[in-house]
Amino acid sequence: MIVEIVSTGDELITGSIVDTNASFLSSEFLELGILVKRCHVVGDDKKDIQAVLKEISLRADIVIVTGGLGPTKDDLTAEIAVEVTGDELIFNKHAFEHMEAFFKERHFEMSDINKKQAYLPSKSIIIQNDCGTASGFYLNHGKSVFYFLPGVPFEMKAMFKKRVLPDICGKFEISHRLKKKITLFGVPESKAAQNLEDFEKQFPDMKLGFRAAFPIIEIKLLSSVVLDNIKIKKDFKNASEWILSRFDPSQIVSAERLSMEEEVARLLIEKKKTIAVAESCTGGLIANLLTDVPGSSAYFLFSVVTYSNEAKINILDVSQKTIIDYGAVHENTAEEMAKGVMGKAGADFGISTSGIAGPTGGTEDKPVGTICIGFAKQGFSTARTYCLDFHDRSKNKKIFAYTCLNYLRKKLL
Amino acid sequence: MIVEIVSTGDELITGSIVDTNASFLSSEFLELGILVKRCHVVGDDKKDIQAVLKEISLRADIVIVTGGLGPTKDDLTAEIAVEVTGDELIFNKHAFEHMEAFFKERHFEMSDINKKQAYLPSKSIIIQNDCGTASGFYLNHGKSVFYFLPGVPFEMKAMFKKRVLPDICGKFEISHRLKKKITLFGVPESKAAQNLEDFEKQFPDMKLGFRAAFPIIEIKLLSSVVLDNIKIKKDFKNASEWILSRFDPSQIVSAERLSMEEEVARLLIEKKKTIAVAESCTGGLIANLLTDVPGSSAYFLFSVVTYSNEAKINILDVSQKTIIDYGAVHENTAEEMAKGVMGKAGADFGISTSGIAGPTGGTEDKPVGTICIGFAKQGFSTARTYCLDFHDRSKNKKIFAYTCLNYLRKKLL
Repeated sequence: MIVEIVSTGDELITGSIVDTNASFLSSEFLELGILVKRCHVVGDDKKDIQAVLKEISLRADIVIVTGGLGPTKDDLTAEIAVEVTGDELIFNKHAFEHMEAFFKERHFEMSDINKKQAYLPSKSIIIQNDCGTASGFYLNHGKSVFYFLPGVPFEMKAMFKKRVLPDICGKFEISHRLKKKITLFGVPESKAAQNLEDFEKQFPDMKLGFRAAFPIIEIKLLSSVVLDNIKIKKDFKNASEWILSRFDPSQIVSAERLSMEEEVARLLIEKKKTIAVAESCTGGLIANLLTDVPGSSAYFLFSVVTYSNEAKINILDVSQKTIIDYGAVHENTAEEMAKGVMGKAGADFGISTSGIAGPTGGTEDKPVGTICIGFAKQGFSTARTYCLDFHDRSKNKKIFAYTCLNYLRKKLL
Repeated sequence: MIVEIVSTGDELITGSIVDTNASFLSSEFLELGILVKRCHVVGDDKKDIQAVLKEISLRADIVIVTGGLGPTKDDLTAEIAVEVTGDELIFNKHAFEHMEAFFKERHFEMSDINKKQAYLPSKSIIIQNDCGTASGFYLNHGKSVFYFLPGVPFEMKAMFKKRVLPDICGKFEISHRLKKKITLFGVPESKAAQNLEDFEKQFPDMKLGFRAAFPIIEIKLLSSVVLDNIKIKKDFKNASEWILSRFDPSQIVSAERLSMEEEVARLLIEKKKTIAVAESCTGGLIANLLTDVPGSSAYFLFSVVTYSNEAKINILDVSQKTIIDYGAVHENTAEEMAKGVMGKAGADFGISTSGIAGPTGGTEDKPVGTICIGFAKQGFSTARTYCLDFHDRSKNKKIFAYTCLNYLRKKLL
């Protein structure tokens, strides 16, 4: 089955926005076991879009077109669709009533230019948009079913999941597959790929997806079609176990689709423990990650960013002597920071970072990339030093924060 | 002039990674005054890539192809290039020596599979890669000049800027243009577009780029070709001023290419002032943004994330009575937090946030999206409440943090 994706809009070919719609759609099709054949990006140019649609209709089974369904004069998609298919635009009562209801609910008046959005190709079927004014539609042309969706990502995604996917699964008899997502940390991308090199040979019927979102690597496993087949379920289990066996257990953050911060949150909640954080070089990033998880107030008590030595001494009770003798970036300082913040917050655990994110501030002894991580719990505290320079301040802050969270995660196991 | 971009790699058509290379390249070409005609994404499939390259060579002047220059068996680009152009791969001494030096400098041994990367099409010219092992190359075929670059973004970007751009400017006589980037905050995307609707009519020779990176909007202005022409310089100045006049001055963060955090940093350094931050619902994001700016230790003294009431009382000296009488999410509490953190840190300014990021925790009086921002300086403190719900925890945290930074920015003007 050939699937192609067309993203339209001048904002894409000027580089103003990155085309995340195509990667979302590709990933959704992969979950159905279908590798998208080609993606196309074209500006808001009638001739260019027409040419692409005509060309694709000669070969693809499914085409998803996003963008150009808005109310302005740049929004040309419906017009182009009728020109390519030899159809005409007619007033669609459902589309109009939907817009009326949409505006009424929000206490806005519908403006005249929106009326254009109620005109759809006569031979198309409407795809309702619950989150916006732009209705989508689908139609047959050439070898293909064309699904036209708006370009606004959250509208497009909701419509695809709720209406287009079921339609595709009905039309093309796409069947259920087993899925698994594994989150890894602390293994370089190239090494992870190398570890899994033999996968295809070992499990020719399964598909493996691979996503590096620095510094996390996600592996997606997808079974072949499941027809209540015990063998496939067993094969899938074997494949999951094979993948997990290719990594050191400490590198596996979660085999249950969780991110690093979600896994740390899960462990803290499971063990009914609370945490306080003292950050220096990570500048609030650890706190930000931990509080991205909904319900984080259950375990996250308090955090500080103590850039200055005074703050480390005054707020965290780090001893002046430690800082004078060893410096701010040292295991002893990090350990005292972790103890200090735990005590201040009355938390079960304290974690801390002190390091050099760069680009300046490095010395021969303590180069950019040096990070000391402190950990404290009742009656016990410790610290460790790592050297991890990615030649970029933001990347260094990220790897420092994840290294600290991973350290905490392992302590919670 | 027709420019097309081809991004290759299975990781793109599985949705594993988003194709940021195409948007980078599109944006670079726009700065030359060239709107890219089409972008293509294809997997690591020989036939698919061949078909795309042949098709494009009939119409494009410049083609940039990224990906597939690595050492593994999936990396097929050089092979495909010779098949399409009827050329052959030959050993390139420069490419080989470059790799040797690259590995030697990093104290790694070059593995055998890397040798493949030294074979380039005989009729091509090498494009040196200073950051990796994959040399690029360019060649003429059909109507087009094809530039082949690696897919790793930081290698590709460096090679494009350093070697491809000068080559294109030489070959195609592309001339100097004036550029400006304006950063906006607090204006909805649709409203910003509407404000600038007449731009093309007013300044037909200039180009306007538009980028929404929530919650910031960036506007790029590009003049027509400058040939020491006083009129164009004057027109450009008029166009800049026209754009700025279309917005409320408080919405303009920077007309000098700076981000919100960079502009706040610039103002703090210019005025020789220091800052301390007390965050509740923003969970460390403000501190993280401020410390993303290199050299932030010059003005950033200290921050806390006080989720719990105890922490607000114990660390920030917020009075228990204030919290009991008004609650944690209240202007009085936010004001005391700002005063408290300023005092603890001995900073010139204190800022604070207390609000409800959601998805839970909202009430009828204080719905999700409620954010109180506190501000303190010597002898003065104040607070304000906003209601900004974007139906997404991360988005709410972002808009809260930027609203707070913008509040500080305006106080610094």
